[in-house]
Amino acid sequence: MKPLITLLNEELSKNIQNLHMPDTLKQSMIYSLEAGGKRIRPLLIFATLDAFGMDGTYGLPVAISVEMIHTYSLIHDDLPSMDNDDLRRGKPTNHKVFGEAMAILAGDGLLTYSFQLLSEIPSSVLPCEKKIVLIRELAKASGPEGMVGGQVADLEGENQQLSIHQLQKIHANKTGKLLTFCVKAGAILADADQETTEKLEQFAYHIGLAFQIQDDILDIEGEPEKIGKQTGSDKNKNKSTYPSLLTLNGAKEKLNGHVTEAKRLLAELPLHTKKLEMITDLIGSRDH
Amino acid sequence: MKPLITLLNEELSKNIQNLHMPDTLKQSMIYSLEAGGKRIRPLLIFATLDAFGMDGTYGLPVAISVEMIHTYSLIHDDLPSMDNDDLRRGKPTNHKVFGEAMAILAGDGLLTYSFQLLSEIPSSVLPCEKKIVLIRELAKASGPEGMVGGQVADLEGENQQLSIHQLQKIHANKTGKLLTFCVKAGAILADADQETTEKLEQFAYHIGLAFQIQDDILDIEGEPEKIGKQTGSDKNKNKSTYPSLLTLNGAKEKLNGHVTEAKRLLAELPLHTKKLEMITDLIGSRDH
Repeated sequence: MKPLITLLNEELSKNIQNLHMPDTLKQSMIYSLEAGGKRIRPLLIFATLDAFGMDGTYGLPVAISVEMIHTYSLIHDDLPSMDNDDLRRGKPTNHKVFGEAMAILAGDGLLTYSFQLLSEIPSSVLPCEKKIVLIRELAKASGPEGMVGGQVADLEGENQQLSIHQLQKIHANKTGKLLTFCVKAGAILADADQETTEKLEQFAYHIGLAFQIQDDILDIEGEPEKIGKQTGSDKNKNKSTYPSLLTLNGAKEKLNGHVTEAKRLLAELPLHTKKLEMITDLIGSRDH
Repeated sequence: MKPLITLLNEELSKNIQNLHMPDTLKQSMIYSLEAGGKRIRPLLIFATLDAFGMDGTYGLPVAISVEMIHTYSLIHDDLPSMDNDDLRRGKPTNHKVFGEAMAILAGDGLLTYSFQLLSEIPSSVLPCEKKIVLIRELAKASGPEGMVGGQVADLEGENQQLSIHQLQKIHANKTGKLLTFCVKAGAILADADQETTEKLEQFAYHIGLAFQIQDDILDIEGEPEKIGKQTGSDKNKNKSTYPSLLTLNGAKEKLNGHVTEAKRLLAELPLHTKKLEMITDLIGSRDH
């Protein structure tokens, strides 16, 4: 899917580049969009479309929107009043380069523009009803009942002993729902039936949890040069994590459980799920 | 239009109240929504619908969305890294009560949810095509090419001598485009023809500028108890304002010019514009 990711990267910046806005704001938005990252969310959209035999480029506008929302959430999460991170993917965080005010506004701008972008897809490309469903699902996944609520719960969970159930709920909201949206968006674009869509959502639930567990594991035994920031931040913040609740080995077992379950669900689908399987493996074994 | 505003106020909180999210986040969002304010933007939507002989309640979901976006922008603007305001409408600002992280996230939540709300209007109430147009126009008015860009330009304009033209452009983006959206949204809901819509947009342009000039005047000669915060903040921040560029009397003359022009445009319309005229007078003569 490399050509698709190359196209995505070009389009991400081009979209912002073409807008009329103050230069610093533009630079700040593009800085974080171009800071790299694994582009897991776009990959999930492309791979889901591929499972239905559809061309990934059809999902490009949705992939751009989701990546903008993901990027805004990273910019805001890194702020001094939140996670107070100086490095992200090996580079200074947005507020370290552009200042706090600009970082907040770059995030606001990316979030707002992501909805504009979806609303601007020509009706000849995507029927109006589907655009509305995508906007609604994206807003739900990333708003107070999804990502924003999860980030609040995550911050409030610092210095507290959480149960596995609580931890799972926080991450289902903070990262899971946006990952699930990506798979669902692919299903919507491909006119999938309800049963297939539901099974894909269950699949997404498991890779979402696997993703988070691997994040926790990397914060313990990952290599800082590969992750692009210091490890040990969960421990420093006294955060409940999968390894802290289950031991490192217990967390790895749980990770494998979710990866296995995700693959089992894929195998049940009458689709060409090879690329979704590859992403599942990537999530379970990534080193950054 | 009092009953409509009462209804709006109830619905604003009820919408958030019914969502599943962490309690503190909910309180933080509702705190700022209930902090009062003139509800000028919803009034503009209601008054525009009235001009076409339509019931204001038809514009309620759009009015709620716009007021949520306006509220998010106030929360973020008040943050220490931006305007650093402790008081808003006589009450402690959101971050003073809930802390900076929660204030940022409450703003993010309100912004995101405003798009969800529009996407959830039943198609029996509003055809899909109109929903998309409203979402697109709202995003454009409040995003990097609108409000967010205007806020950046406003911050960058501090400690600089701006021209009237530059000042006008900043405020057209920072406050004007969202006010214009309200009038345009009314026109969209009422199926207005292009000529009428364009005249209404010109009208909105003038009341937008009048609104900002009066804001600048109130920062000099307003009563702090009525405004709900200290006056003189523009001078303290060394900001270019209409009075600083035109003298206080010159600014008042300019204000009257825009009010007169706005009313002239209304008089040219084949509509029942009594309520829009009242809002124009309100904007030109408000003491808070």
